[in-house]
Amino acid sequence: MASQKTLEDAFHAGLKDVLFAERASVRALKKAAKAAQLPELKQALEQHAEESEGQMERLQQVFEAIGKPARGKTCESIQGLQAELEDHLEEFKETDAADAVLIAGTQAMEHYEIARYGTLKTWAAQLGLDEAVKLLDQTLQEEKKADELLNNVAQKANEMGQQAGS
Amino acid sequence: MASQKTLEDAFHAGLKDVLFAERASVRALKKAAKAAQLPELKQALEQHAEESEGQMERLQQVFEAIGKPARGKTCESIQGLQAELEDHLEEFKETDAADAVLIAGTQAMEHYEIARYGTLKTWAAQLGLDEAVKLLDQTLQEEKKADELLNNVAQKANEMGQQAGS
Repeated sequence: MASQKTLEDAFHAGLKDVLFAERASVRALKKAAKAAQLPELKQALEQHAEESEGQMERLQQVFEAIGKPARGKTCESIQGLQAELEDHLEEFKETDAADAVLIAGTQAMEHYEIARYGTLKTWAAQLGLDEAVKLLDQTLQEEKKADELLNNVAQKANEMGQQAGS
Repeated sequence: MASQKTLEDAFHAGLKDVLFAERASVRALKKAAKAAQLPELKQALEQHAEESEGQMERLQQVFEAIGKPARGKTCESIQGLQAELEDHLEEFKETDAADAVLIAGTQAMEHYEIARYGTLKTWAAQLGLDEAVKLLDQTLQEEKKADELLNNVAQKANEMGQQAGS
């Protein structure tokens, strides 16, 4: 039988996946920030793109903690989300729904990362990687806040849309 | 200029996307439930597969509310998550990490749905579709509970893994 896969292997694979996702996410956030109409939305996206750069630095520290090079691995799911967001930016460009679809696409990417960081934090705890738990949790909390902030902006975009439509 | 896209279009496209995702998710949950080792995990997955059938019925009611046929549309992102989960089931089969990767893959799918139902609920409110808001919120709350339950099971799998490893 081939060598048995372990939780360490899953943890390492997960780190590579989320590093790739962060890179894709920064590109998508910058593109989305440029396209955003509502100033609060533009600001929230720019701020989160900047935050994501810090999240990638934390990921590098986690790679160091397990003695592995910080390399990403293609993740088809985040590529799918990124492609969809870009299609929607084009399709809904300059329409009243442009900001709404942009928020939706960005939140889908946030939730991908929330799921992944949640898993990695749990696994780091099981593997006794205390420093990694701390780093991953910092990012997880930032991701949840970013999602919450986008919920608030969506609410505001919603109210403005209703005013425009009334 | 071609006809301008509206929030109704985005809502309809989102419904088709999440219907496809639910179908993929039910198949993945059933497969995962079969592979699960921890009895609590098997039960949680079976229960959520059943719950997802009800969620699809609610989606059909939402399609009816906007006078459209309940048709899904291929979503590459959920296909990516499904393919990854199936690869991991195979790769980690009968290892100590099998349940852990299975929980991770299922939670990634849950978070996809949490993001999508959150968006659809916000849009339904903006479009004044009160019945749809109620239906989508019911499902959103179920998805969040399912994710929470998997967090608890992951914690338990974690503790058992630590015992086994100690």
